[in-house]
Amino acid sequence: MCEEENRVVFEISQTDLLGKTGQFTTLQKRKIRTPNLFPVVDPRRQEIPPEEMHREFKVEGIITSAYLSKKRDIVEQAIESGGIHEWLGFPGLIMMDSGAYQLMAYGDVDIGEEETIRIQESLGPDIGVPLDMPILPTTRKEEVASRIETTIERVCRLASIVRREDIIWTLPIQGGRFSDLMQTYLDKIMAKGCFSFYRFYALGSVVPVMISYDYETLVTMMETARKNIPNTYPLHLFGAGHPMMFALATAMGYDTFDSAAYILMAKDGRYLTTQGTYGIKELEDFPCYCKQCISLTPKEVRKLNKTEQIEFLARHNLYVSMGEIRTIRQAIREGRLWDLVRDRSRAHPKLFDGVQKLISSPRLIRELQQGTPTTKSSSLNVFDKEDAQRPELFINYVSLASKEKQQARVIILGDNASTYHLVQAHIKKKGMEEDPYVFHPIVGLVPLELADTYPVNQIVFTKTAAKNSWNLRLDAALKFLQQYEKVIIEKGGETAWGEQIMHHLEKNLGSQMQTS
Amino acid sequence: MCEEENRVVFEISQTDLLGKTGQFTTLQKRKIRTPNLFPVVDPRRQEIPPEEMHREFKVEGIITSAYLSKKRDIVEQAIESGGIHEWLGFPGLIMMDSGAYQLMAYGDVDIGEEETIRIQESLGPDIGVPLDMPILPTTRKEEVASRIETTIERVCRLASIVRREDIIWTLPIQGGRFSDLMQTYLDKIMAKGCFSFYRFYALGSVVPVMISYDYETLVTMMETARKNIPNTYPLHLFGAGHPMMFALATAMGYDTFDSAAYILMAKDGRYLTTQGTYGIKELEDFPCYCKQCISLTPKEVRKLNKTEQIEFLARHNLYVSMGEIRTIRQAIREGRLWDLVRDRSRAHPKLFDGVQKLISSPRLIRELQQGTPTTKSSSLNVFDKEDAQRPELFINYVSLASKEKQQARVIILGDNASTYHLVQAHIKKKGMEEDPYVFHPIVGLVPLELADTYPVNQIVFTKTAAKNSWNLRLDAALKFLQQYEKVIIEKGGETAWGEQIMHHLEKNLGSQMQTS
Repeated sequence: MCEEENRVVFEISQTDLLGKTGQFTTLQKRKIRTPNLFPVVDPRRQEIPPEEMHREFKVEGIITSAYLSKKRDIVEQAIESGGIHEWLGFPGLIMMDSGAYQLMAYGDVDIGEEETIRIQESLGPDIGVPLDMPILPTTRKEEVASRIETTIERVCRLASIVRREDIIWTLPIQGGRFSDLMQTYLDKIMAKGCFSFYRFYALGSVVPVMISYDYETLVTMMETARKNIPNTYPLHLFGAGHPMMFALATAMGYDTFDSAAYILMAKDGRYLTTQGTYGIKELEDFPCYCKQCISLTPKEVRKLNKTEQIEFLARHNLYVSMGEIRTIRQAIREGRLWDLVRDRSRAHPKLFDGVQKLISSPRLIRELQQGTPTTKSSSLNVFDKEDAQRPELFINYVSLASKEKQQARVIILGDNASTYHLVQAHIKKKGMEEDPYVFHPIVGLVPLELADTYPVNQIVFTKTAAKNSWNLRLDAALKFLQQYEKVIIEKGGETAWGEQIMHHLEKNLGSQMQTS
Repeated sequence: MCEEENRVVFEISQTDLLGKTGQFTTLQKRKIRTPNLFPVVDPRRQEIPPEEMHREFKVEGIITSAYLSKKRDIVEQAIESGGIHEWLGFPGLIMMDSGAYQLMAYGDVDIGEEETIRIQESLGPDIGVPLDMPILPTTRKEEVASRIETTIERVCRLASIVRREDIIWTLPIQGGRFSDLMQTYLDKIMAKGCFSFYRFYALGSVVPVMISYDYETLVTMMETARKNIPNTYPLHLFGAGHPMMFALATAMGYDTFDSAAYILMAKDGRYLTTQGTYGIKELEDFPCYCKQCISLTPKEVRKLNKTEQIEFLARHNLYVSMGEIRTIRQAIREGRLWDLVRDRSRAHPKLFDGVQKLISSPRLIRELQQGTPTTKSSSLNVFDKEDAQRPELFINYVSLASKEKQQARVIILGDNASTYHLVQAHIKKKGMEEDPYVFHPIVGLVPLELADTYPVNQIVFTKTAAKNSWNLRLDAALKFLQQYEKVIIEKGGETAWGEQIMHHLEKNLGSQMQTS
């Protein structure tokens, strides 16, 4: 990929974990903010007109399909009207899928490798997709290996097939649940020099994994793809359906999603929320305050005819989905994406397992740490044991300290931020000593000069978190302090931990310790 | 209180924890659903007209104040217009506070004990409040003791002062953070026979506790009040401000709240969400999809003049607050109030501490269990260690079993619901034995006949929950099984725990054990 061009098309403003807010500009000069969601739009029949999506729902990009355009027989008419933007009446970004997945799933209309490119070029979307070979969770490994070879051939052939220069082409990332094959796939494309032709990247074959709620596998797939694509390149997740998982995907570095869930779920009488899905039949009150849900009660919606009911639910589902995108963008800006991911993980036990897989792996935390700012203006909440593993806190404070010194002064810190000031006043009064540390129940020993900097000075923690953390931290502190010949302990601030910590140190440091 | 009358005014339909959905009918025949929120309305100036609150926001009840009616000098005009409902143009329930709190906080307008009753009776709200003596967190205990004596006198005198018979009078519950004094207060009112005059009950003096985020004290106060008022009587929480804590208060048995937060926060440029509060200045995207937030961007709102900005924020804040009420009602109906309380607890570390105080106390869990249905149609999610303490699971399964038997058959269960069917098929094939149990990683040993009933058959758990729970449960199982002369173990279903459990039992039961 040409860095010059990349800079033009994808500007990143803020990051948090591997999530980022940015602006993506297409070669046709359409702009979208990221992260963003492209609702799936049928090229013939739309329950919510694309123009309304843009005006009312603030949808900036949509996705449609070459396969469906052929199946619905709209290609000629759309060309006559001036292209896909005019045909759909949508002024924002349009991505057009080749239809590979539908081809595999339904296979009722055939579409060839070159034909899908011709349809896309004649309709002129902002982003196109070559015809790749999707993979099901049931596809055997040998078959997957053979399918990715075909996709590699097609992906590498694309440069010689395309004619238009104003369409951004997507590199589909295949391999399914086989990380090794996904790696092989990407390595081969790189080795063949085909990678640089693409300016947009998309992980495919995740829908069946998500349908079975296998979020642990999804996390592995998302990680494998992301670590191969620099985090400054735009990465799309094909078929990321439910708003409850947008935050997780964003945190793992995915910038755009497409989803048909808003309409598919509506047709099935289902009502989306960021905390799960309801059947319209089980609702007596809408747990929502969108324009739709304040206008009618569930009982009234059940009395609508089928079409009206679908339109009602589709609109609600789309409000929630687009609202979640805004919530994610805001969370990135204020450095709270971790909190949002953890909140959303309680939507389903299997989503929780997926998020746990991400946040309990030191290797993955180090990856998340790369995008996490080293300073934030917001408070850093630590609710439980898992939050103590936040990338902001993934610092070995004592390793930052020199171990050459012979004497350490440890100050016991209290359980809230205000005690830092007490400690500082205390220090000032007594005069500084060599190697002073404070002990914080969440992060343990911290060199004094870092105690009033981010993140230590912005940690707000629960009693549960402190209880889970402080004796682990104390053990580590002891191990470190035992290297010193002499340790002087002072109690600063009023703290429930103070007495216990003092007692513990006294018992274990013995003659090394002095109380000042 | 007359039970007959009580039944007429407060009909309960569903319960979960101590939360309940119901319908409350006033003596003036106005109906509200519960739980519900009464937005605070100034009798003179309203940023959102009460009529619009009713029509657009589906507000069913509001609260205003006798003190403010006097201060704003609207009493005569309101009487002329026909009463407070006509004056405010609000057709729903109107509660009118005496103004005791404002009197204490501002004291700029004086209002007497009898005067507040006369104002209320002349304006005719559905619910009135006598002039009690509020308590601040800084009020010394001796002073609190003296204040509650004054309130007791006034509360007991009310019956002889009132003239109108169509106003429901509220018993304010005082004592502040001193549970013993609150108990004394209620005992004395009961002993003096003044309790039965009241049909509505309200915990007061919580605002200062909430302003300092002292949710642990709030939980104690809420518990003391609730356990003295039968859960079938309507209980109000005065000044329950932030929507993030409505679910907690509902779970502890509170049916209605009043809040000025929507407008006070708006005047301060603050934007409420169920997960916390934002300053309008820090927002670039509204994390929301209400009618307001899809119409303008934060940047556009910042450009509005001050009045327009307040009106915008007040409307958003009210949408969120009323939406949370609907979310809570729906959560009660489907038996997911516990999940909602736990979700909301992550809005602030101190709210989390308050919720922990509630859910980590076996005594309080037993109280919550009283309202929790013994069977639910929804799945029972267990995400973490705390969820394993859910009241639905607060059953000692082995104590339900007879210990007279000489032989037990234990079947190792898998980690998902489907394995129950495998176990059942297995049992059927082998024929039943004496005292069969299954071992479930979350609840431990369960008599087989209960294994396919609620809650065991509806538990959906995370790997984290199982990891935290299963060896504790195994220890308890061992202790129980050691009473038997012979234990026969069978493995049913495919399970990761199976092998480990088998090994553990083998090691510890020794010669007692047989593998079938």
